[in-house]
Amino acid sequence: MPRIEPRILKGTRDFLPRTMILRQYVIDTLRRTFEQFGFEPLETPAIEYAETFEGKSDAEVDKLLYRFTDHGGRRVALRYELNVALARVAAQYQNELVFPFKRYQMGPVWRADRPQKGRYREFWQCDVDIVGSASMLADAEVLAVVYTALRNLGFERFTIRLNNRKILSGLGIVAGVPPERTAGLYRAIDKLERDGAEQVRALLLEEGLSAETAGRLLEMVQMPGGGPEVLAGLRLRFADVPVGLEGVAEMEELLGYLEALGVPASHYRLDLSMVRGLGYYTGPIYETVVDEPRIGSISGGGRYDRMVGLFGPDMPATGVSLGLERIVDVISELHLLDLPGTIAQALVALFDAGHVSAALGLAQELRQAGIRTEVYLEVGVPLGKQFRYADRKGIPYVLVVGPDELAAGTVTVKEMRTGEQRSLPRAEVAGRLKEELGRQR
Amino acid sequence: MPRIEPRILKGTRDFLPRTMILRQYVIDTLRRTFEQFGFEPLETPAIEYAETFEGKSDAEVDKLLYRFTDHGGRRVALRYELNVALARVAAQYQNELVFPFKRYQMGPVWRADRPQKGRYREFWQCDVDIVGSASMLADAEVLAVVYTALRNLGFERFTIRLNNRKILSGLGIVAGVPPERTAGLYRAIDKLERDGAEQVRALLLEEGLSAETAGRLLEMVQMPGGGPEVLAGLRLRFADVPVGLEGVAEMEELLGYLEALGVPASHYRLDLSMVRGLGYYTGPIYETVVDEPRIGSISGGGRYDRMVGLFGPDMPATGVSLGLERIVDVISELHLLDLPGTIAQALVALFDAGHVSAALGLAQELRQAGIRTEVYLEVGVPLGKQFRYADRKGIPYVLVVGPDELAAGTVTVKEMRTGEQRSLPRAEVAGRLKEELGRQR
Repeated sequence: MPRIEPRILKGTRDFLPRTMILRQYVIDTLRRTFEQFGFEPLETPAIEYAETFEGKSDAEVDKLLYRFTDHGGRRVALRYELNVALARVAAQYQNELVFPFKRYQMGPVWRADRPQKGRYREFWQCDVDIVGSASMLADAEVLAVVYTALRNLGFERFTIRLNNRKILSGLGIVAGVPPERTAGLYRAIDKLERDGAEQVRALLLEEGLSAETAGRLLEMVQMPGGGPEVLAGLRLRFADVPVGLEGVAEMEELLGYLEALGVPASHYRLDLSMVRGLGYYTGPIYETVVDEPRIGSISGGGRYDRMVGLFGPDMPATGVSLGLERIVDVISELHLLDLPGTIAQALVALFDAGHVSAALGLAQELRQAGIRTEVYLEVGVPLGKQFRYADRKGIPYVLVVGPDELAAGTVTVKEMRTGEQRSLPRAEVAGRLKEELGRQR
Repeated sequence: MPRIEPRILKGTRDFLPRTMILRQYVIDTLRRTFEQFGFEPLETPAIEYAETFEGKSDAEVDKLLYRFTDHGGRRVALRYELNVALARVAAQYQNELVFPFKRYQMGPVWRADRPQKGRYREFWQCDVDIVGSASMLADAEVLAVVYTALRNLGFERFTIRLNNRKILSGLGIVAGVPPERTAGLYRAIDKLERDGAEQVRALLLEEGLSAETAGRLLEMVQMPGGGPEVLAGLRLRFADVPVGLEGVAEMEELLGYLEALGVPASHYRLDLSMVRGLGYYTGPIYETVVDEPRIGSISGGGRYDRMVGLFGPDMPATGVSLGLERIVDVISELHLLDLPGTIAQALVALFDAGHVSAALGLAQELRQAGIRTEVYLEVGVPLGKQFRYADRKGIPYVLVVGPDELAAGTVTVKEMRTGEQRSLPRAEVAGRLKEELGRQR
């Protein structure tokens, strides 16, 4: 058989142990935080009928779907994101689930995108969503989860940017943008931070807005001042624009709940120029940016009250997606965590063929004491080579039971960091190591 | 937009919270056990070049691959199993990894199989493998992991069946089976337990064996007696069959290590009629069956010393795959675990619109004390309806802060199981609940 080149597709990745240890730490921390807020785990298939994912956002998104025909001739797709599946689940199990349904889901999604730094074709999303509550309490809970999760991961300097699609619609109406142009308007404003006001003005003119309308709109989304002043200003302009007033009221309510939940005002701010790409949002929208390093948003989300209705009865829904890849990148770059590079805490060496049983027995004793333990897996190898194996892997302790140790009822323990060797009574070795490892943590 | 029927593909599943809580418990327990033995986490992509998976076992397997062409015209496939990817990883990162490489990987795999009870198109495998050791120590470690994992999950009555492809080859040679017929021979013997000796005899005759050869073979794979007697009998018959003798020596060595690792002899046995389906095994093979309920094997594996060589340098490898679905089925059927049906341990009710902030503050306090806490997500709902919500979800405690409680500095705590209501000082409530929940576990 010809040899196959060992390689993977661009935009997909292998995670070797050192990276996986960090990824699992992040996943575990997110899960613990989500559960602290009472969110429940859900898992949906990676492959679904293509129609489940198609047409939920816009044509650009549909192009990125991995679609194919299965062995039964059905049109199927790999999931593009997790909350379309949640909407389907809410409709499909409407009689089994208790609403509001608070769920989290973590897992890979697939997008046939052009791979670049920080953008992959297979990547993990970590989502918390609430289906069945139209209250701003639900949005506030979701944002409190994001804040708490990032703090639990060691993040300090980050900002949750808040906006509301109803406010944006209101702004469009006030500026005189025809309703059918709203999508183009969102796309243009979305580029404000990246491309600057003049670029966005040009885009708005291209969209067919008059110079005056474009100017009014740009002025409004860049209104100076903190949240309360901006909201007061919006109330004046929205005197005759019900949808705008509704958005302002939602934002005021949301800000009040965030304060009651103890989310510090230093970590969120109203930002009228923040739009979010996806087409299906209907109310509050949010994204989280890390101040340092600048890698774009690490979480995004909002309210999507009309998605469940595509599959069944109308139900309000809101939620947020945390991007595992970028979170891991920030933690690595800022050295927020000091995790071990390997799993094993001890290696039991094999003195010679006559002492394999003694070594295996010792290993099992250490494991039962809760010490993650490897046994060297080849008989008849010089101890020096076994020590080097532990050293290369970063295993902190190597234990040896040879004839002298067996006779004396001891174990020789070598600490790899210092090179120091000790002789410990066999009956005490597991307890002593466990204690030392506990102290080092 | 027309409504889309909420449905999923046959052979795929949604896991609602109650099921997910059990699945996650099993996954966590397996991971903890794997790490106790020093296995390290690895993750590989779900989509790979199709050629990575093709032709690794036999034509039947290739037919079950989900294959398609991606947006760049590349032939890709969803992973069929996890250890072909491990073989690729071992070759691709041969200079970065330290060998022997002990890794675990848990995640979904996909097979376009006909769905039936216990057989799915998308299901999880939980694999432990060791690449780079030809020693029977590696096989023994893998089997000790299986034993320990199942015990940690509460399994008591199960048997690890052991055999060796070299012994099977030896039996074929002794019986006079031409080497090119070995695969057919394996397939026939594999059916012994399910279909009985006469069916297998007929199959062997169909394969072109003489009645005498078939008879000799059937007699040998059903040799009576325990492991040592059977191995002694095989040694006699294999006097001139080196591959058979090699298999016997491996088996003897393996049994010795299992004893030294403390795996009780009651939980494994030599079974010459156990073959394993996949074509790529080269030495020891193993599978685990649960005595009750009878649902087939819950783990399978063996040594596959020639797979890494398909991608790079030759490296020995061995490992086992635990089937998450069947393990979960057994635990459910035998009621081995008593897990809560929901995540939240407490619900903070909303007395009225004026007491939302007090409720949110209390919820945050409970969460910080480590109590998994929900807040009711609609303002202005009668308390009775909020209690019913907690009851339907199975949340054990509901807490209320109204005007009386605020004035008195207390919280009313309702225990849903008994219906009992208590008034606790606000400053003590988190500590008291935490303690009670700890005792109930």
